[in-house]
Amino acid sequence: MSTTTRRVAEAEARAMLRALELAGLGVRGANPLVGAVLLAPDGTVLGEGHHRGAGTPHAEPAALADAGDRGHDPRGGTMVVTLEPCNHTGRTGPCSEALISAGVARVVFAADDVNGPAAGGASRLRAAGVGCVGGVEAEASKHLNERWTASVVAGRPFVTLKSAQSLDGRVAAVDGSSQWITGPEARADGHRLRALADAVLVGSGTVRDDDPRLTARGGASGEEPAAGSGPALRVAMGLTPVPSEAAIRGAGFVHLPTRDVPAALDELFARGVRHLLVEGGPRIAAAFLRAGVVDELVSYVAPVVLGDGAPAFPDLGIDSLAAAPRWSLDDAGGPAVRRLGADVRLHLRPPPPGEQAEPVPVSDAGRPDPR
Amino acid sequence: MSTTTRRVAEAEARAMLRALELAGLGVRGANPLVGAVLLAPDGTVLGEGHHRGAGTPHAEPAALADAGDRGHDPRGGTMVVTLEPCNHTGRTGPCSEALISAGVARVVFAADDVNGPAAGGASRLRAAGVGCVGGVEAEASKHLNERWTASVVAGRPFVTLKSAQSLDGRVAAVDGSSQWITGPEARADGHRLRALADAVLVGSGTVRDDDPRLTARGGASGEEPAAGSGPALRVAMGLTPVPSEAAIRGAGFVHLPTRDVPAALDELFARGVRHLLVEGGPRIAAAFLRAGVVDELVSYVAPVVLGDGAPAFPDLGIDSLAAAPRWSLDDAGGPAVRRLGADVRLHLRPPPPGEQAEPVPVSDAGRPDPR
Ligand SMILES: NC(=O)c1ccc[n+]([C@@H]2O[C@H](COP(=O)([O-])OP(=O)(O)OC[C@H]3O[C@@H](n4cnc5c(N)ncnc54)[C@H](OP(=O)(O)O)[C@@H]3O)[C@@H](O)[C@H]2O)c1
Ligand SMILES: NC(=O)c1ccc[n+]([C@@H]2O[C@H](COP(=O)([O-])OP(=O)(O)OC[C@H]3O[C@@H](n4cnc5c(N)ncnc54)[C@H](OP(=O)(O)O)[C@@H]3O)[C@@H](O)[C@H]2O)c1
Repeated sequence: MSTTTRRVAEAEARAMLRALELAGLGVRGANPLVGAVLLAPDGTVLGEGHHRGAGTPHAEPAALADAGDRGHDPRGGTMVVTLEPCNHTGRTGPCSEALISAGVARVVFAADDVNGPAAGGASRLRAAGVGCVGGVEAEASKHLNERWTASVVAGRPFVTLKSAQSLDGRVAAVDGSSQWITGPEARADGHRLRALADAVLVGSGTVRDDDPRLTARGGASGEEPAAGSGPALRVAMGLTPVPSEAAIRGAGFVHLPTRDVPAALDELFARGVRHLLVEGGPRIAAAFLRAGVVDELVSYVAPVVLGDGAPAFPDLGIDSLAAAPRWSLDDAGGPAVRRLGADVRLHLRPPPPGEQAEPVPVSDAGRPDPR
Repeated sequence: MSTTTRRVAEAEARAMLRALELAGLGVRGANPLVGAVLLAPDGTVLGEGHHRGAGTPHAEPAALADAGDRGHDPRGGTMVVTLEPCNHTGRTGPCSEALISAGVARVVFAADDVNGPAAGGASRLRAAGVGCVGGVEAEASKHLNERWTASVVAGRPFVTLKSAQSLDGRVAAVDGSSQWITGPEARADGHRLRALADAVLVGSGTVRDDDPRLTARGGASGEEPAAGSGPALRVAMGLTPVPSEAAIRGAGFVHLPTRDVPAALDELFARGVRHLLVEGGPRIAAAFLRAGVVDELVSYVAPVVLGDGAPAFPDLGIDSLAAAPRWSLDDAGGPAVRRLGADVRLHLRPPPPGEQAEPVPVSDAGRPDPR
């Protein structure tokens, strides 16, 4: 390997690590986290980009635009990207075509695109004479998007579960009072989550007790959302009829008269929902957890101790600590642990799909574990 | 007021704000949080100090030492300190005498010392001809130490409650398994808490179920503590006799055969305990919370969801959200919210003693609160 070749190979390896880092700045949801770095033929960085969520540019066009902004010419360059460039026209055009028309000479990518309609980018690029290498840091990229991939493979929406609770895991006090456990900053953040999703879902119990509107309001002051800033659909799930005067009704309202989580997800997928925000209440939250379809959890924890009251996740059927899935702090989209006013926000990802709960060391029966 | 006098007055005001900031770097426990800044007669900062916890220098000697390290002469200077200098020989000598012999000309302090044996510093200083002004930013200093003050006034130890729980507020799974909910970093931090306290207390149930030793081990690996690094006393509380082979026994072991929290605190205070760490289990934790004597709470939250299992704080008798005390994130001694390995550590302080729970806005009966 010549010195130049080695230098370029090292630059590509570094660029892929940087692209993975950039990918982590994105927001989880209907689309995967993807980062990209555009290199000149000599390995110099020309531009960087990442995907910021459904409806925004993909990582590769973002990196091309960044190179343009910096006055760099992409022709003959190498695009290093954490996912195979897409080959389909969604809300943005196919990345394969964008790379070809930009005159990029080579593409290095990490994971293959598993998304049927979007896949085939590498073949298209090769057919156009662009050198294409896949599988670089593929595991890291797959790890980043494993829950998203699972939802795509299963043909269901990506599911975000949101929950607001007391320090001791209660969503309501003994008398049922639950408004408000968290403060205005946490609630405003919850409204921002709504604006990211295609649909927001609650159970019959929440419709009955809270009569929510489920729109996305701008800020802590509770003002009305800008038109179109809310989720496309507002969903009530459960067999109980939704009262005609319920606040959730209106354009975009859907009632799913079922208790079957997979059936509800099928129906929403068929209606075009690719990112679903489940807002509870606790029984609905538990049903989605039991079904194993919660892809991320945003938990707002208020520093209030209730002692008793409705538990956040009742009846999960978990008997022992060893059988309990271990979630992990997820820094995608920003720090996993944040202070929001008086409250704390935790962003968590579940264990990889199908993975067993971690075995937990158990003390010897004879000798008590010295605590 | 002359320009010089005004400049010096402004420097003293700034120094007091800085001293309050320094105070917040200390550790809660048997002693109050105190910060100090030593100024030259012209208002220049000569040294800074804060109290780092029982057995370490008070803030004023720390500031004098800092000035010395920087090669500054304290004579004729002004000590700006958040608490009236103490007048009693504890583990360190009286600060009043240290200030007099250092030749400090003037002392500006915030709050009066409420601690009987330590009080009287201002009178002693004045008697020695040192100018003494109290009450500057007194409210801020009192706020910082309000729970410590309450414990001193009540003549009981300062109480730290430690708890390790799942995200949903469980300290054990349905089958009783509870080792380990949190990971090695959180457990090591818990051991550091033990080393700070004069006594560590658990209930009969924890003695029975976990057979803890309650020593302070150095790190995550669980090695034995250095001699003297642990708490002086290890306390079991409850009517049940402690088995002769229980690991908690040995030098420093105390059994308090009572369920009466104030009586237990009296007994421990009489034995010299000024800082008590209560480690649970849940029923003991709840008893201390109900008694209103928990002065700070350190909660380790593991990102595991258990659904059911023993709740962290059972039977508090809180019926509504409005009646629930609102704790607040406490940055004394370091950030209130910290990541420890896979877990999160929250440091919380209760509402001021005697203060009612904050009124929580309740929706109109007629018009449902738009959520
Ligand atoms: N803090 C928070 O984050 C938060 C969020 C939302 C609500 N809440 C509180 O939660 C309380 C309501 O609790 P909840 O548990 O009754 O409300 P819920 O979870 O919203 O509704 C439960 C209902 O959902 C229906 N359902 C549909 N599929 C189900 C399934 N697979 N399993 C179980 N139920 C299913 C059932 O109604 P059908 O009989 O109609 O089928 C069930 O009774 C209120 O106090 C509310 O304020 C808190
Ligand atoms: N995750 C954690 O942070 C943590 C910490 C410690 C323990 N734990 C777990 O907690 C479980 C034990 O729970 P627990 O509630 O039985 O233990 P506990 O709170 O340690 O002990 C309860 C016992 O304390 C005695 N007691 C003394 N004063 C009391 C009062 N004022 N009110 C109520 N009880 C009083 C009573 O025993 P007498 O009948 O003898 O009076 C009572 O049965 C174990 O599984 C253990 O692993 C978890």
